[in-house]
Amino acid sequence: MTEAPSAFTEQDHADRMDRATRDTIAAGLSGLLVTPGPDLTWLCGYRPTAITERLTLLVLTPESEPRLLVPALERPDAEACPGAGALRLSDWRDGQDPYAAAAGLLRPQGRYGISDSTWALHLLGLQEALPLTTYRALTTVLPMLRAVKDEHEVARMAAAGAAADAAYEEILSVRFTGRRERDVAADLARLLRAHGHSQVDFTVVGSGPNGADPHHEAGDRVIRRGDMVVLDFGGLLGGYGSDTTRTVHVGPATDEERRVHDIVRTAQQAAFEAVRPGVACQDIDRTARTVIEVAGYGEYFVHRTGHGIGVTTHEPPYLVEGEQLPLVPGMCFSIEPGIYLPGRFGVRIEDIVTCTEDGGRRLNNTSREMAFVE
Amino acid sequence: MTEAPSAFTEQDHADRMDRATRDTIAAGLSGLLVTPGPDLTWLCGYRPTAITERLTLLVLTPESEPRLLVPALERPDAEACPGAGALRLSDWRDGQDPYAAAAGLLRPQGRYGISDSTWALHLLGLQEALPLTTYRALTTVLPMLRAVKDEHEVARMAAAGAAADAAYEEILSVRFTGRRERDVAADLARLLRAHGHSQVDFTVVGSGPNGADPHHEAGDRVIRRGDMVVLDFGGLLGGYGSDTTRTVHVGPATDEERRVHDIVRTAQQAAFEAVRPGVACQDIDRTARTVIEVAGYGEYFVHRTGHGIGVTTHEPPYLVEGEQLPLVPGMCFSIEPGIYLPGRFGVRIEDIVTCTEDGGRRLNNTSREMAFVE
Repeated sequence: MTEAPSAFTEQDHADRMDRATRDTIAAGLSGLLVTPGPDLTWLCGYRPTAITERLTLLVLTPESEPRLLVPALERPDAEACPGAGALRLSDWRDGQDPYAAAAGLLRPQGRYGISDSTWALHLLGLQEALPLTTYRALTTVLPMLRAVKDEHEVARMAAAGAAADAAYEEILSVRFTGRRERDVAADLARLLRAHGHSQVDFTVVGSGPNGADPHHEAGDRVIRRGDMVVLDFGGLLGGYGSDTTRTVHVGPATDEERRVHDIVRTAQQAAFEAVRPGVACQDIDRTARTVIEVAGYGEYFVHRTGHGIGVTTHEPPYLVEGEQLPLVPGMCFSIEPGIYLPGRFGVRIEDIVTCTEDGGRRLNNTSREMAFVE
Repeated sequence: MTEAPSAFTEQDHADRMDRATRDTIAAGLSGLLVTPGPDLTWLCGYRPTAITERLTLLVLTPESEPRLLVPALERPDAEACPGAGALRLSDWRDGQDPYAAAAGLLRPQGRYGISDSTWALHLLGLQEALPLTTYRALTTVLPMLRAVKDEHEVARMAAAGAAADAAYEEILSVRFTGRRERDVAADLARLLRAHGHSQVDFTVVGSGPNGADPHHEAGDRVIRRGDMVVLDFGGLLGGYGSDTTRTVHVGPATDEERRVHDIVRTAQQAAFEAVRPGVACQDIDRTARTVIEVAGYGEYFVHRTGHGIGVTTHEPPYLVEGEQLPLVPGMCFSIEPGIYLPGRFGVRIEDIVTCTEDGGRRLNNTSREMAFVE
């Protein structure tokens, strides 16, 4: 079992909040507003029991130290968070107006960044309390905030990837034939946990025609000899994400299945080799897409080539047509081309890759050759 | 194990969407916009694999049948949802602008309700695509949409409550002394699942001074003889929520502990007896609060008396000062007064209650007397 790395320190959180504040100002904003979720956890280490209708709001502005507004009954939890020493806490009680309390921390005509996953309830509450404020989504205005990982973060990503690799190696000796997709999915979840994942976010088992639905999870279909099976699985280890896809085959494969698998594998390798600092995200997508288009399957590659990953499973940078953000050392993202033949089968191969000064480095290292299972 | 009830039908979902559309118009809005989460599941039965940065949007307006915009790669899942036959589906592909696609379904100067938990990313995207549209949070403008449960829903709530009762009865014979809170919490989670819960959302075990933090979950504190222990646990069964609190004692209790427990129990009973159609939500809160205030502990009751519950754990109606919404038969909500003595101990007693024509009906039915555990 992979060991979870030690927690980040108060200084780590203070440094992140300080950098976020500076980046926010550099982007022409008055400050950054963050509600519970991955951004809040990353910035100050606070992770409330649940994300609810009760407003919790971190306010980062240049005029003040970081301020965290919480429901009064959650104050003890907030006081115990890793970054608490770098925060000024305030609270509101049930029956009071939380948006009035928040307004007291904001400028009436301020322009704020706000975390992507902030509830509309809260954003509308702020817009109503201070009608002249304006807002931009955090990843729109600060796509780089969490995109470049430091060495400690990359180490955690690598630990998550290694655990996912170990789970994959073990699933290859599990029986597939005659079992339901959801049973194999349960095995995958168990293996991810056994190898140290604290949370399993998805365990896709797409067998036969179900593999042609890129977001099929796992259902009651009984896996048969002759099936191609897409396995896409991931979760959190030490607070950072894994996300791996391999496509395996139950018994011998047809020539067409082998050919489609080879094309996807080549596209994934080509995209990986294109990774280096300064290359635009969309060029990684174009590289994978070109390989698949030239092979005649372009219309069956129906999604972007990849997404950033860190404390969330999907985050900038997105490897998608139109995204001109250049790769920077420390970025971590998936490279996951696929071909989906409706009603027949699908193939996807995915690794998490980090950009280094010298090019890409895979954080998943199991074979990308088609594996055969029983 | 309690059996999960059968799924809702396409007609159930069609009826709900129809009623939601009518209620929206009656509230003076142009339509209702709903993103993935409990509202979407309740309305059309669609529950995407994950809630992500990719826009999925249900649009309910009087001009059209319900329309559901989804990412192209999730279309097969959406086509398979229980309410699909009552929807017109459209999709957008990676690299296209989802907000432009959504704008085509909206009126440029429309006033829309939008689900509370819609991401700010999406709301800001809509506001930018159609700058003259305005938005109100769903529970602000339509608090009653899901608040009144029909008989099938109340039956599911009752099944969830019965399962929680069974879990509580069994936890009383588990050993507490010498074990960590988190170990007892794991037992509670296991028991909820054993009695049919598909999902466990919280298992609070607040022992001794930790019980005085209303939102303390469960930690490494080792439970000792003489501890008061707050147990607050719940999750989903058949898609509907349970949420129960009992406060137990390890070995004999002091006179003060008994007195505080009695006060909370009396407050909970008084609030329960106040339930009947037409009573304002805040009057249920005032009833419980008055009992605790008169007994001299008012300053230690630091939260509202309760919250609605259904397909989410917290939803309207909120039993809180200032909420004048009248109770209606079919509403389901918690009644959960508490007294929290900082650094010492806490007591909370909570049942889920449904309002009937004849008054309140408890959906939890275990004893509210102080139970003693070993």
